[in-house]
Amino acid sequence: MDLETLARSVSEWLKGTGPEADIIVSSRIRLARNLAKFPFLSRADEGIRAEIENQVKDRLLGIKKFGPITYFPIDGMAQLDRQMFVERQLISRELSEAKGARGVAISEEQNLSIMVNEEDHLRIQVLRSGYELDACWKQISQLDDELESQVTYAFHEHLGYLTACPTNVGTGIRASVMLHLPALVLTKEIQKFFQAMHKMNLTVRGMYGEGSQAMGDFYQVSNQTTLGRSEEDIVNTIKTVIPKILDYERNARARLMNDNRRGVHDQVSRAYGILKTAQTISSEETMQLLSNVRMGVNLGLIDDLEIPQINELFIFTQPAHLQKIRKERMESAERNVARAAYLRTKLIQPDEMN
Amino acid sequence: MDLETLARSVSEWLKGTGPEADIIVSSRIRLARNLAKFPFLSRADEGIRAEIENQVKDRLLGIKKFGPITYFPIDGMAQLDRQMFVERQLISRELSEAKGARGVAISEEQNLSIMVNEEDHLRIQVLRSGYELDACWKQISQLDDELESQVTYAFHEHLGYLTACPTNVGTGIRASVMLHLPALVLTKEIQKFFQAMHKMNLTVRGMYGEGSQAMGDFYQVSNQTTLGRSEEDIVNTIKTVIPKILDYERNARARLMNDNRRGVHDQVSRAYGILKTAQTISSEETMQLLSNVRMGVNLGLIDDLEIPQINELFIFTQPAHLQKIRKERMESAERNVARAAYLRTKLIQPDEMN
Repeated sequence: MDLETLARSVSEWLKGTGPEADIIVSSRIRLARNLAKFPFLSRADEGIRAEIENQVKDRLLGIKKFGPITYFPIDGMAQLDRQMFVERQLISRELSEAKGARGVAISEEQNLSIMVNEEDHLRIQVLRSGYELDACWKQISQLDDELESQVTYAFHEHLGYLTACPTNVGTGIRASVMLHLPALVLTKEIQKFFQAMHKMNLTVRGMYGEGSQAMGDFYQVSNQTTLGRSEEDIVNTIKTVIPKILDYERNARARLMNDNRRGVHDQVSRAYGILKTAQTISSEETMQLLSNVRMGVNLGLIDDLEIPQINELFIFTQPAHLQKIRKERMESAERNVARAAYLRTKLIQPDEMN
Repeated sequence: MDLETLARSVSEWLKGTGPEADIIVSSRIRLARNLAKFPFLSRADEGIRAEIENQVKDRLLGIKKFGPITYFPIDGMAQLDRQMFVERQLISRELSEAKGARGVAISEEQNLSIMVNEEDHLRIQVLRSGYELDACWKQISQLDDELESQVTYAFHEHLGYLTACPTNVGTGIRASVMLHLPALVLTKEIQKFFQAMHKMNLTVRGMYGEGSQAMGDFYQVSNQTTLGRSEEDIVNTIKTVIPKILDYERNARARLMNDNRRGVHDQVSRAYGILKTAQTISSEETMQLLSNVRMGVNLGLIDDLEIPQINELFIFTQPAHLQKIRKERMESAERNVARAAYLRTKLIQPDEMN
């Protein structure tokens, strides 16, 4: 798979399939792993980094169980392509902006991505559409076992897996779900949701992880602790809370529809109208309007759009994707015009365009 | 012509024809006249009012030159119908809300309306689409002459026509044009325009005359003085200033298109999108969005709408018209829903509605 194919492809996790896909966009588990024979990256010079990449790369390409794997070196990759990888959630901003030998191994469906030389030597990620934490866990365990049969991980018999940052020591696991919570935002209950998550030792972040702003009413909920509990335990904590979150959001949606169906329909319908007619539009406004439209489809207020189409638009209207599609670098103002044109093309049916 | 036919008909002045119709919606001249043998209305009891109406009514119905005339008594008319007359500019708010015997005579095309027992015994109005002050003046003079051949006006050889309010003494004439000035509003030059009009002793008002707010970027410019100058002089003062106003607005439009074509196109296009998709919308927002769309059509940015359609929407989306069309009384919230539905029906082409 080359970069251009990747930029045009639709990742499996965007397909809008899987359980609870009206609220749970995707499920994700990542493991932080380090190789015993190399120092942590904070103490690794460029030579060591290169050696890590070198040793790991071939083993990653050798994984057979999950279909063909492609390894993309990030060092030397154009900024636009790195940003495209970030927008698709295949790599972190940190990996994109780091220096030196580093890269990412990606499966064809883009469910699997293994970052090399991010904060740890290896960051193994499995990402799936909908509520699929169990499937993620099953797949990532297999992958982890396969890798562990080939390399020796840094492991301490009392502490568990050793990681660059103490917060990851132990299991090195972070399990998360990406939630679409527009009704909790509209009913101003989202703060209550934050507090509830905090009390349960769960972290809430924006779409692009640590430090990223919540955009388009998307929130990532993940575990905080990785030490002293089993991986299954940690995944189960998230699984315990998910039905409650689904209830919160669904109740809020039902209340909105009950108390102010017309107002909700109006907001959703106008959002759709603006997306179809704007001549220039920012990424932030696009996210917000798409969020309204996504809720509208889920509430049965819009019937000529499907969730997968909207999920795709969230990604393909982002700056790097837009530039990849247009095959040119564009400044922010040009992007806003290109984004509006792209949205019109995708949202207006041929027989509306006379 | 009955009330229901009137409510559904399109007045000639809305047709968007006539010179400079991109900016000048309509031209209007009115004359204030009183009958010599009756006291001014401030000193007229109900009996005198009724007698005035009685004497005048038959003479108005007898006018032949301008096609069939219908006389609508306003006393006893339902509030909704009175409001509908105000929205169409056939009567003033004052006549609508006054008490006692009063009415209005209207020609078929609604160019001609003669209010009986408003502030003066007679308020004769001619209203035409586009820049047609000369045609208005010609028609109203004929009408005035015809009436004067049948009744004796209160007239003083030095002062001229005597009127209830001293500001109308002399000619009793008010000549005005209704201007659509969206670009002067957008470029924030509208205050400069107000000042220029003020210096020339011209008055600027909103769409519905004295005390009405400017809505939808519509402004009525009219003369202040009526004494000591001939009618032609007064009409000419307005005619002198019109080319300058047209220049102001057209320059502002050209500058907007030159400096920020994309931004203007975006605003216009979104306004059209919202009007097509809103599920509830206030009268004020409708006026503002229609104003943007009207400018968009005039600038060639929207090509599937015509000015007459938009002019009609300005009137038919107003509260009383909306209720007349739906044949039911509606509260404000219901009207907003009905208005949005009406706009969608009128603006969405059949093949867009799948």
